[in-house]
Amino acid sequence: MEKQKSFLPTAPYKGTRDFYPDEMRFRNWMFSVMRETVQSFGYQEYDGPILESFELYKAKSGEEIVQRQLYDFIDKGERRVAIRPEMTPTLARMVAGNVRNLAKPIRWFSVPNLWRYEQPGKGRLREHWQLNVDLFGVKSYTAEVEIILIADAILQKFRAPKGSYQIKVSHRKLLDSFLSNTLELKSEKAQAVSKVLDKKSKVSQKEFEGEMSPLLSDPAKQLPLIYSYLDSDLKSISKMPGIDPNAIEFISKLFSDLNGLGIKEQLVFDPSIVRGFDYYTGCIFEVFDTNPENRRSLYGGGRYDNLIGLFSNEQLSGIGFGLGDVTFKNFLEGHGLIPDLNRNDTVFIPILEEGLFQEVIKLADELRISGIKTETMLEPSKIAKQIQTAEKKGCRFVVFLGSDELANRTVQLKDLNTGEQVSVSRLDLSSKLKESLKV
Amino acid sequence: MEKQKSFLPTAPYKGTRDFYPDEMRFRNWMFSVMRETVQSFGYQEYDGPILESFELYKAKSGEEIVQRQLYDFIDKGERRVAIRPEMTPTLARMVAGNVRNLAKPIRWFSVPNLWRYEQPGKGRLREHWQLNVDLFGVKSYTAEVEIILIADAILQKFRAPKGSYQIKVSHRKLLDSFLSNTLELKSEKAQAVSKVLDKKSKVSQKEFEGEMSPLLSDPAKQLPLIYSYLDSDLKSISKMPGIDPNAIEFISKLFSDLNGLGIKEQLVFDPSIVRGFDYYTGCIFEVFDTNPENRRSLYGGGRYDNLIGLFSNEQLSGIGFGLGDVTFKNFLEGHGLIPDLNRNDTVFIPILEEGLFQEVIKLADELRISGIKTETMLEPSKIAKQIQTAEKKGCRFVVFLGSDELANRTVQLKDLNTGEQVSVSRLDLSSKLKESLKV
Repeated sequence: MEKQKSFLPTAPYKGTRDFYPDEMRFRNWMFSVMRETVQSFGYQEYDGPILESFELYKAKSGEEIVQRQLYDFIDKGERRVAIRPEMTPTLARMVAGNVRNLAKPIRWFSVPNLWRYEQPGKGRLREHWQLNVDLFGVKSYTAEVEIILIADAILQKFRAPKGSYQIKVSHRKLLDSFLSNTLELKSEKAQAVSKVLDKKSKVSQKEFEGEMSPLLSDPAKQLPLIYSYLDSDLKSISKMPGIDPNAIEFISKLFSDLNGLGIKEQLVFDPSIVRGFDYYTGCIFEVFDTNPENRRSLYGGGRYDNLIGLFSNEQLSGIGFGLGDVTFKNFLEGHGLIPDLNRNDTVFIPILEEGLFQEVIKLADELRISGIKTETMLEPSKIAKQIQTAEKKGCRFVVFLGSDELANRTVQLKDLNTGEQVSVSRLDLSSKLKESLKV
Repeated sequence: MEKQKSFLPTAPYKGTRDFYPDEMRFRNWMFSVMRETVQSFGYQEYDGPILESFELYKAKSGEEIVQRQLYDFIDKGERRVAIRPEMTPTLARMVAGNVRNLAKPIRWFSVPNLWRYEQPGKGRLREHWQLNVDLFGVKSYTAEVEIILIADAILQKFRAPKGSYQIKVSHRKLLDSFLSNTLELKSEKAQAVSKVLDKKSKVSQKEFEGEMSPLLSDPAKQLPLIYSYLDSDLKSISKMPGIDPNAIEFISKLFSDLNGLGIKEQLVFDPSIVRGFDYYTGCIFEVFDTNPENRRSLYGGGRYDNLIGLFSNEQLSGIGFGLGDVTFKNFLEGHGLIPDLNRNDTVFIPILEEGLFQEVIKLADELRISGIKTETMLEPSKIAKQIQTAEKKGCRFVVFLGSDELANRTVQLKDLNTGEQVSVSRLDLSSKLKESLKV
């Protein structure tokens, strides 16, 4: 028996995706809608290398990312490097590197590919693409107004119905003052409590209390306060003892302005949102899908008061958010917001006779010059087979050029949608196609 | 003395680049011109993960890449992975994974970021972005016709003058038959000789002969043959003993068709081109910059007859090329082909009074809805300072909205190019701006 040849697997690396043309078309469409939105607000695109020094993440990213999720390694020159798990450290490095020359407000966006070593599961991969939008150099709450307007404008641009999402807003100092003043917790305890709060929606009440009680000195008194905090609206929270009044005022002004600008039903004050990152210092927000089958955070962000402190003595306040492609695609699918992207406006030209190859290419060139995408066969074969290829590729129009047509300066134009075939003068072909294809 | 705070460096990882908005605008412009060109030929975009299994490169890439230039490491799950140094292995894997369902000819392109551990130098970085264009499923020379038409069309799209580049074409089997039949070299010797040939243009004649002679059995007889081969045109090479007549015929037909399609002065037969990669099996080509200060290969590619052989028993012939951003930018700069990309068509709205913030945002929203990019200040400050910000950002138009203007339903429109300032009715503003900005 001949030895079996062993083949390499065709699957991509675990937890990652191949973007075949259909998936790529979707990715390009989705991010082009987002790009257009943020560019309409004057944001400019930037990018940085996907490899950064390990030190950058060690200093800036959370412990879980650095210790368990980072793709880090030693390069051939003995430098410890890492594939970026998030864009903010790169952004901070770049802004710090040129901070004096950049006109404020700095408005930047990026669409990086990010990597984390996670156990792959539904909606959780090891890499994703993420829109990052950031605004620097404005301390006023008006920066929050703009960022939340953009977060909303993106959804509007995708024609998301008003009820399909909620923008939940809070302020880091509300929770901080509640934990340290109202509950009178020391800083490490406060951090542990906020981690349990962050998971609350994912566990049962019993589990929640089971984890929370050991962290409290007087659960019987403090647990009711916690529930009361979590259920508060802006009015009732302002009456709780110890809550930071500046944070209350900040949120009030923000809501009043956003309401005046039409962001109303979708805007919710929710003191329970925590956001995992350590660097948020002010307002935080999260956009939630209201689809009962996908009730989860779509994207979120907040204010960080000293983003570039690791790199220089300059002070620069920023606010921004990140939006990943995987969860956002689920949102668009769940609400039926994805248009038909497979409509192919490329015209197809078969080869009827070997000797006509050059003439077919010349015809294709004519069409391309007039702005019509055109692909041709490159070898003759049975007509039926060539039409089948056009159909498989999703082309609507097939243009036949035989010796007779060449002599007459005509072509046969077949519409695969209707099956109709007509003779068209070569001079009229491109305008006729442009009209039908609306290109 | 207080301890000096130590800051992290703001430079990117060695051999890589930060794309600040100016550089990003250039990158986006350059690849959008390329995208448009290849899409006009019906090519569809794909992408794959930047990490692949090490095995893929071990099996497909050249020895130098794998042993000295690969960014490979062990992941947290003990898999050996590598950052892609080239796109072809990913492409082969993806095509093989779906080869039966893909309509032939398969026309694909991609713009991946690729990484190699190299000693950084002029025009040599550790990462670059590369257009990859590939065509599968056509054995005829007509595939070469199309690919070289595209290689040329890209340069035309950038308005490269005819004399600014040359497309040098050869066929792998010409060199192979010359080495094994004409020079009568055994396979390992032939490979070593072809490596020396590949470097010829970079070394002196003396160095060339010094490296070549030890590989030959009879240098006095063989060296003249080598020089004669390298200087041959298609006619004279066809008369050399032992040269593959099929390769000659292939090149003749290819040149005849391309000449008939207008690719003439820029097309050169050059038997000296080798191309480093092991997987080319047929026609090979390279596009050269003729700029005396940048006389080098801009991009190139060729035919590989069994791309997916590592993954399956299916046979699939392909042809393609790759074009990197760093060398291509040098070409565009050298020939003065980069347009002014810094023209900023974003309109700028200062804040004249704190109380007018909401009204400024409403005005900005009106402009955005009518398709005009608009950015606003977010805090009031001296007018002169706000205008300075607009200037620094490169905005041409500044729109002032004060209490009087709000009451009159007008704005003041200032053109920073001319310094002219006029009162404009709010109703006419967007059409006036669109006309001036040509958006």
